[in-house]
Amino acid sequence: MSYASLEETFYRLAQLEHANAILGWDQQVMMPAKGNEARGKALAELAVMRAEILQAPQLADSFAAAGQALSNLEPWQQANFHEMKTTWQRASALPTELIEQEAMTLNECEHAWRTLRAENDWQSFEPMLQKVFDITRTKAQALYEKLGAENGYDNPYDALLDTFDPGSRMRTIDPVFRELKSELPGLLQQVLEKQNTATPALMQSQPISAEQQKPLAKALMAVLGYDFNGGRLDEAAHPFSGGVPDDSRITTRYDEANVINGLMAVIHETGHASYEMNLPKEWRYKPVGNSMGMTVHESQSLFFEMQLGHSQAFVEALVPMLEQHLSPQPVFAADNILKLVNKVEPGLIRVYADEVTYPLHVILRYELERDLILGNAKVSDIPERWNAAMQGYLGLNTEGDYKNGPMQDVHWPSGAIGYFPSYTLGAMTAAQLFAAMNKAIPDVQQQIAALNFQPVFNWLSENIWQKGRSLSYHQLLTEATGESLNSQFFLNHIRSRYLG
Amino acid sequence: MSYASLEETFYRLAQLEHANAILGWDQQVMMPAKGNEARGKALAELAVMRAEILQAPQLADSFAAAGQALSNLEPWQQANFHEMKTTWQRASALPTELIEQEAMTLNECEHAWRTLRAENDWQSFEPMLQKVFDITRTKAQALYEKLGAENGYDNPYDALLDTFDPGSRMRTIDPVFRELKSELPGLLQQVLEKQNTATPALMQSQPISAEQQKPLAKALMAVLGYDFNGGRLDEAAHPFSGGVPDDSRITTRYDEANVINGLMAVIHETGHASYEMNLPKEWRYKPVGNSMGMTVHESQSLFFEMQLGHSQAFVEALVPMLEQHLSPQPVFAADNILKLVNKVEPGLIRVYADEVTYPLHVILRYELERDLILGNAKVSDIPERWNAAMQGYLGLNTEGDYKNGPMQDVHWPSGAIGYFPSYTLGAMTAAQLFAAMNKAIPDVQQQIAALNFQPVFNWLSENIWQKGRSLSYHQLLTEATGESLNSQFFLNHIRSRYLG
Repeated sequence: MSYASLEETFYRLAQLEHANAILGWDQQVMMPAKGNEARGKALAELAVMRAEILQAPQLADSFAAAGQALSNLEPWQQANFHEMKTTWQRASALPTELIEQEAMTLNECEHAWRTLRAENDWQSFEPMLQKVFDITRTKAQALYEKLGAENGYDNPYDALLDTFDPGSRMRTIDPVFRELKSELPGLLQQVLEKQNTATPALMQSQPISAEQQKPLAKALMAVLGYDFNGGRLDEAAHPFSGGVPDDSRITTRYDEANVINGLMAVIHETGHASYEMNLPKEWRYKPVGNSMGMTVHESQSLFFEMQLGHSQAFVEALVPMLEQHLSPQPVFAADNILKLVNKVEPGLIRVYADEVTYPLHVILRYELERDLILGNAKVSDIPERWNAAMQGYLGLNTEGDYKNGPMQDVHWPSGAIGYFPSYTLGAMTAAQLFAAMNKAIPDVQQQIAALNFQPVFNWLSENIWQKGRSLSYHQLLTEATGESLNSQFFLNHIRSRYLG
Repeated sequence: MSYASLEETFYRLAQLEHANAILGWDQQVMMPAKGNEARGKALAELAVMRAEILQAPQLADSFAAAGQALSNLEPWQQANFHEMKTTWQRASALPTELIEQEAMTLNECEHAWRTLRAENDWQSFEPMLQKVFDITRTKAQALYEKLGAENGYDNPYDALLDTFDPGSRMRTIDPVFRELKSELPGLLQQVLEKQNTATPALMQSQPISAEQQKPLAKALMAVLGYDFNGGRLDEAAHPFSGGVPDDSRITTRYDEANVINGLMAVIHETGHASYEMNLPKEWRYKPVGNSMGMTVHESQSLFFEMQLGHSQAFVEALVPMLEQHLSPQPVFAADNILKLVNKVEPGLIRVYADEVTYPLHVILRYELERDLILGNAKVSDIPERWNAAMQGYLGLNTEGDYKNGPMQDVHWPSGAIGYFPSYTLGAMTAAQLFAAMNKAIPDVQQQIAALNFQPVFNWLSENIWQKGRSLSYHQLLTEATGESLNSQFFLNHIRSRYLG
């Protein structure tokens, strides 16, 4: 009965997570400003209830008993047990005072960051960020000590990586990032030289209203297999995907001066939502039925946006849709759209970066946060190291520009330390999956050119979506592509798209 | 510490109620169809968690200890204690099996009703409704036995009334309904004779789109004091108000053929929302800070809609707003609008009834459900008694027309037995409050004519909104109007508006 009782406990947690997901979506998309205090209190109380459920003393017995009878269970149940146990261990590894202190520290720092960033005020920000890194180091150390042996952490930073991305470790990230670091700056120079000789892309000559863009966005989502009976498209300040598998919602922001921008955000979020919508129905409300960590999630959005959406076959097929919904204009020629979306240009801001420079923004942050957590760097070193890395990787000076330098991202002030690598691991995973799919389906490029994505979806569904969380990241990738993460797929993709 | 620990428990319940309210709103306004199963499971689990919190064994001790130290508490705390205790007693009065059986019975009957109503199939519906009344009788009997002495229930039906409307009892309803029953049919004949001699109202000649109506609806809400920083206006199949006090949302349905219809629904829901928005801030997340039962809530929506919205002063002030937002047309003349909104006509359907015939629809249902719960009628008697009452009160034959007869309302199939009286008690309360306000503010009619509602809001705020649940209905009404519920205010309102 112990395994069954664990399933009951986690069924309840799944329902709390449903409430949390919809209340969070509503907070960002629908809630009026004055509702925020009450919403914050409700979400906080749900979090406390979740923690109490996971810290109930009888869970230890249930896990022990179920663990001993593990061989009686189906493989998917064993995977489910593993997911439940990891969640429980993580929730019970930290003393309550530390969790409360962390919540207060993060709340203070993130709140201050919103003002201080605009004011470019690193001096006031530094001591608060110091507190965030101090408490995160304490947390990482505690998780490392308690869970390290069982989970194969080599160091406290691994414990943080594992939070956002189960199975992610420094020892697997370091070599692939080293390869990107040694190849990308040289590739970047070649790409810039090549693009500088081409005629520049035409820009949109007149604004196109959100009202005109919306039906096009919806039509594109439908072509991409999005089921509007199981989700919605709304507007929000930052595009995101949210909700639950059977009600998987996305948002976008319409750029009146650049329709293509908004469309690519829609394609990206549709990738996230397609993953959620197609998780295995038979494992609903069970941890094994959830999506994988951030790397696999980002691999799906980037598969849709970068591998499909920025490809020549796709863009050529997109043109008639654009012309059907908007009045034809020169900016919508396929070649011009490809120039627009694949324009490479070193810049200060990560979220605006193209796919060639993006990994260098991520590697900079990874190296810094890793060294900070492992005690090999101090918070006060950040501006200097930031500037040195931006100079070295992208040839840009950020001295004194904290706002567009180390203060640009919400991640650190909100405590998401260990998150950044997943963006680039996701991009690499997407490239590797796309290559494997092209091998498995020889005519897939013709299918894409005909906007027939069914073979693509079938392949993703079989290899990723329907697996839920039943495999480790390493197993998932190896079963889908025949090998573990290999940076050459991403580098080849860059070479072929930008230098081919 | 016992009272304080009860406050903590009820703080948690308030946060669960926040989740429930927003998830419920989302379900009706935003959720895509395929999300319904998962949403139902999440809402059910939150309900189970609420029940478990209220059935925790240690609560009995806390209530006993806090009850003994009651005299140390402030009056508002004593009222809060009373509210907490009533909620707890009600939640722990019924055996779990009965609650589960009731949930299944109601789910089955309401689900079947949606189809059977459309098919006018009373034969198939009757046995399911029989089960609903059987289990509701069992429930009412159990509540009566356990809580009757402490709460002054004279019979099991009182226990049901008290659920929707704390303090409502048969002994207070019977005499006022008797007065309405003896006066209204005669008044109705006089009103019909008078209206038949007048020229009929002009109808709108062209459809007006929802897009045109929406800004007008929002402008009207703003004039009525609605704060869009603390709420929203959306569309839904049935107008309703929902959310939480700091985020109090309403919906409406735009009738393209009749703008005035949609506006009056907006005014009605704005009344509900204004009550919630203006509940006392210092008692947030405490039961004493909640709105009163259904009668007082309906009194606020009907105060806005019927007492204000259908009045000559208000309608005359509304005309310039209509002409500003829509192109002027003869239908928008003040006299014509008054004819439209105050048209009296006996009909089969309660929700379409005017304010003269509405109470007769309610009294019919009250007498029937009361007799069914007290064992003085059988479910199989319903069609015959329905027809007899419709003949007697409104001169209408409903024989064989179950769809527009006893199958028209969702209340009985969904178990809301004891709810109907509050509609008419609310209408009577609204009339009594409006009369008291007119006495207290001599120039209020001129203020209304100038669309200056501040004196009205101040009076409602002081007398109703800011009281929360700190007084009984009887105390609230007596302090606001100088006397307990008196049907003459409503009857005088009818005489003055329709025969004056």
